[in-house]
Amino acid sequence: MSPKITTELLKQLRQVMKNPKYVQEPVQAYIVPSGDAHQSEYIAPCDCRRAFISGFDGSAGTAIVTEQQAAMWTDGRYFLQAAQQMDNNWTLMKMGLKDTPTQEDWLVSVLPEGSKVGVDPFIIPADQWKRMSKALRSAGHDLVPVKENLIDTIWADCPQRPCKPLITLDLSYTGVSWRDKIVALRSKMAERKVMWFVVTALDEVAWLFNLRGSDVEYNPVFFAYAVIGMNTIRLFIDGDRMMDPAVREHLQLDSTLEPEFKIQVMPYGSILSELQAVGAGLSPKEKVWLSDKASYALSEAIPKAYRYLTPYTPICIAKAVKNSSETEGMRRAHIKDAVALCELFNWLEKEVPKGTITEIIAADKAEEFRSQQKDFVELSFATISSTGPNGAIIHYKPVPETNRTLSVNEIYLLDSGAQYKDGTTDVTRTMHFGTPSAYEKECFTYVLKGHIAVSAAIFPNGTKGHLLDSFARSALWDCGLDYLHGTGHGVGSFLNVHEGPCGISYKTFADEPLEAGMIVSDEPGYYEDGSFGIRIENVVLVIPAETKYNFKNRGSLTFEPLTLVPIQTKMIDVNLLTQKECNWVNDYHQKCREVVGAELERQGRHEALQWLIRETEPLVRVQ
Amino acid sequence: MSPKITTELLKQLRQVMKNPKYVQEPVQAYIVPSGDAHQSEYIAPCDCRRAFISGFDGSAGTAIVTEQQAAMWTDGRYFLQAAQQMDNNWTLMKMGLKDTPTQEDWLVSVLPEGSKVGVDPFIIPADQWKRMSKALRSAGHDLVPVKENLIDTIWADCPQRPCKPLITLDLSYTGVSWRDKIVALRSKMAERKVMWFVVTALDEVAWLFNLRGSDVEYNPVFFAYAVIGMNTIRLFIDGDRMMDPAVREHLQLDSTLEPEFKIQVMPYGSILSELQAVGAGLSPKEKVWLSDKASYALSEAIPKAYRYLTPYTPICIAKAVKNSSETEGMRRAHIKDAVALCELFNWLEKEVPKGTITEIIAADKAEEFRSQQKDFVELSFATISSTGPNGAIIHYKPVPETNRTLSVNEIYLLDSGAQYKDGTTDVTRTMHFGTPSAYEKECFTYVLKGHIAVSAAIFPNGTKGHLLDSFARSALWDCGLDYLHGTGHGVGSFLNVHEGPCGISYKTFADEPLEAGMIVSDEPGYYEDGSFGIRIENVVLVIPAETKYNFKNRGSLTFEPLTLVPIQTKMIDVNLLTQKECNWVNDYHQKCREVVGAELERQGRHEALQWLIRETEPLVRVQ
Repeated sequence: MSPKITTELLKQLRQVMKNPKYVQEPVQAYIVPSGDAHQSEYIAPCDCRRAFISGFDGSAGTAIVTEQQAAMWTDGRYFLQAAQQMDNNWTLMKMGLKDTPTQEDWLVSVLPEGSKVGVDPFIIPADQWKRMSKALRSAGHDLVPVKENLIDTIWADCPQRPCKPLITLDLSYTGVSWRDKIVALRSKMAERKVMWFVVTALDEVAWLFNLRGSDVEYNPVFFAYAVIGMNTIRLFIDGDRMMDPAVREHLQLDSTLEPEFKIQVMPYGSILSELQAVGAGLSPKEKVWLSDKASYALSEAIPKAYRYLTPYTPICIAKAVKNSSETEGMRRAHIKDAVALCELFNWLEKEVPKGTITEIIAADKAEEFRSQQKDFVELSFATISSTGPNGAIIHYKPVPETNRTLSVNEIYLLDSGAQYKDGTTDVTRTMHFGTPSAYEKECFTYVLKGHIAVSAAIFPNGTKGHLLDSFARSALWDCGLDYLHGTGHGVGSFLNVHEGPCGISYKTFADEPLEAGMIVSDEPGYYEDGSFGIRIENVVLVIPAETKYNFKNRGSLTFEPLTLVPIQTKMIDVNLLTQKECNWVNDYHQKCREVVGAELERQGRHEALQWLIRETEPLVRVQ
Repeated sequence: MSPKITTELLKQLRQVMKNPKYVQEPVQAYIVPSGDAHQSEYIAPCDCRRAFISGFDGSAGTAIVTEQQAAMWTDGRYFLQAAQQMDNNWTLMKMGLKDTPTQEDWLVSVLPEGSKVGVDPFIIPADQWKRMSKALRSAGHDLVPVKENLIDTIWADCPQRPCKPLITLDLSYTGVSWRDKIVALRSKMAERKVMWFVVTALDEVAWLFNLRGSDVEYNPVFFAYAVIGMNTIRLFIDGDRMMDPAVREHLQLDSTLEPEFKIQVMPYGSILSELQAVGAGLSPKEKVWLSDKASYALSEAIPKAYRYLTPYTPICIAKAVKNSSETEGMRRAHIKDAVALCELFNWLEKEVPKGTITEIIAADKAEEFRSQQKDFVELSFATISSTGPNGAIIHYKPVPETNRTLSVNEIYLLDSGAQYKDGTTDVTRTMHFGTPSAYEKECFTYVLKGHIAVSAAIFPNGTKGHLLDSFARSALWDCGLDYLHGTGHGVGSFLNVHEGPCGISYKTFADEPLEAGMIVSDEPGYYEDGSFGIRIENVVLVIPAETKYNFKNRGSLTFEPLTLVPIQTKMIDVNLLTQKECNWVNDYHQKCREVVGAELERQGRHEALQWLIRETEPLVRVQ
């Protein structure tokens, strides 16, 4: 991977930073966040402005360009990748390390007195604006909104915003109709005494209307906003796809409906002016509810006294707790996904020794097997297919320049998943196609112990996911090892593979408590720079736990793995496991064999079935 | 314990709440926090205003009185005690339970429109003022400072503020002279570019000047403030105790000193006017550093633009990391403390069966044995001596009305500690003097497993204590049990038994990372209302850990128990322990036997030594 040469681009950007055509007054710094106007994690090509200006195309990062310097903040997953993709114009700011300054502190340290710092108000979330604006102001600088995106002004061949057809989801997938979701939302609004709710996150719009799209790769969402009043529903979406008869039927656009369920369709670009009109027409005590992660631009459209901001919207919380139709769909999707991976690993086992399988070929083959499964739509994220040292790049994606050939001498890490119409998958397995070293097995086994510690944890109702994070690390910590990422994230149901408001990470504190029906990933790892990466990831469902006692009648929860793909026993040093851990692995493998075995049988995939049976032989622990 | 009758007092308070002699405008609610002007946890009798108005005298709680209602917020340790001590005028607000409103939310729900909420600006910390003021303002109310404390106006026989003699500590105890502490503080001030530092916490004043006092029971502190400039030192303390020659010598008040080490002694009551004078004389860019827990009154004395507030002061952080003199002192103190407890438990074992030992007699005997030890000063907190159902009241203190007789049929919980000139102790042991039931042993063993999980934990440098909290609960959670308090708190060195900035609790997130030299408690428990309480508490020192590997050269930490008192093996169901846990207990007991045994021998306490040897017999686990 050779770095992008950005000297000329930065020169152009620094020119527009003082061009009165775009800025009222010159800005001494310009912030280029990762996100789009919906604060999406995965973004459309037209929104990849940070990657355009810097070359670094990981999923998380913020660029700041001043008159003299250019700096990029990103987290542990991307330290190596960012260093490789950026040229010498850029300073890498490693977030999470003790000596790394925050963006605010850095700006204060480098800016001349009384500077202006510009940012696109549609791209920066309201909460970040507030924090940064306050920090800058207290040091004598100003954060200013720059209406025209300055990157767009220098991006000659910027792609068009996508506008792809929609998919309608019926009750068998969603369990709840969009009308009932609107009713539930309005009841939450009434509880909080708000009159309007603004839906800004793309997955929240998609979930609310039981629609899916493909405007953004990997996330089945479409560019839209919605504004829900107590008696009105406005959907801001570009119009031609609203001509699809299936969509019109699904949204009952041509039916005679009670007025409060009549959807008014408006152009995507009119959200700001419509919201400003709503803001201007409010009577005292009429509040408007927005996420505090909504863009500064939209948040400012509502006068401050009328704004009701919360970190998590009622849609975000309702969406996280899957109903039985969604849970059953997720189960089906994970069984199909396991079928595809059994096929893949069986195939790799035969092909890798021939020395012809590269990371990209393996990733493509995984996609091919998945695409053979019913209701497959697309991948749920860019496949991380990595062998040897590439495995230590936590969010690696193979490209021709880095593409390595799988061999019997190196560890292979595959983190992949798909969108099926009935559910979203995300699974990581770490395999060795030859003979792993004792050290590799040792590290793998610590990671496995952490994985089991979370998966088998029993905890009281009301517990937040971040309180479980250390369980995943304990075995690694005992030996002086660790990994620099969180342990788990929420997973959508045929929606974004990363979703809030729950997760398992030492980094958060404001996560919502885990509840039965929530779905998260459990994915501890260990990475040795330049050598190998290990990660074991299952998607798990929060379920009630039966316990011997029941303190204060609080009830307990635990996890049920939805992912049912064998964990390579060859990589396990069984003598490092306790008997309980050993039983967990054997029970898990027994379930893989039964459930996925039956599906392989049904699909007539006999060779993969034989592989599954071989890979799920019980471990025996020498006492 | 019968509740305090507060009808008349509340009537009087409600009268002064609208008396123009005290308030500019009537206040519709008055807040009575726990603290004193230094935000101390333990307070002098003259500062016990919340206990005076409500009857509830636990260490934590906030009372709010409106025209119609009176409500008390307190945490899980005090739910039972508060319910018993308050009459029907009061509503108990159980903090930490899901449905309990915050003080702000409650005020907003009960106040008439446009209300004024009064509070003593010297008693409310600046950060709390800010949060509450903002919440009230956004609901159309106002938080207003009421200069005269309204409780004091109705408290006829309010005691005098204490002014007891001081103790000077020499280098053999403190390891660092006060001059060197000032130098270190000034260097931290220079780093942050602040010109003044205001010391408001009593333990920080005591630590900085290597002085101790006894103005507050259990905490060896004295009423004082200090204001440290880059060239000046001002100590605000009431004057007659500054006449003590030992103190004058210690502070070099009569020596010819470099001016920057010359201490100006000023009256305690002049802090506000002096600070206002400092505030008025500041040039641009001259900042004044205060804790954000300093009182609103002092914080307001400095104009906002000049204020530099942090959650933890540099003194708080420096004080938490004990130097080798302090660590050695703490070790000595804990050995002496263990001698006293071996004597006590040996004595109780003989006396309890006679049926004459009450909780108060046992507590007094513990104090008697401790007072026989060298450098004993006083207890470090009110002894929790509780048997049977009283043990379930987490911060119980026996009084004649509740005093229960110890018996061979009930669990006995003793949480006690002392101030020695060389260190502070805090230890909890749970004993049975007859035959514990299988259920009692089971619960005790889960608590022990949690205690060991924290004590033996290995974790990377930079880890915050709150990330270890779940380790203490895991064994309880597995069976559906839990406890409603944190797992550990920082412990001072001949200072407050509770100190920041580190601890082990699910409730905090902003704690500072644990560092070698820090000292915390490890005290999981289990409480069954109406039946019994179990807690096992050691004070532990953070020490570097040797690990097999060393990820990113971060280094690892673990704990060394300073407390060396046997854990009653009779209470342990050894078959619930892993071999590793069993070894931990045996190694711990071996160390108790060696270290405390030698001291018992030296002190000629042969019977207690025999008891110690018996109580430290190794556990044998049946495989």
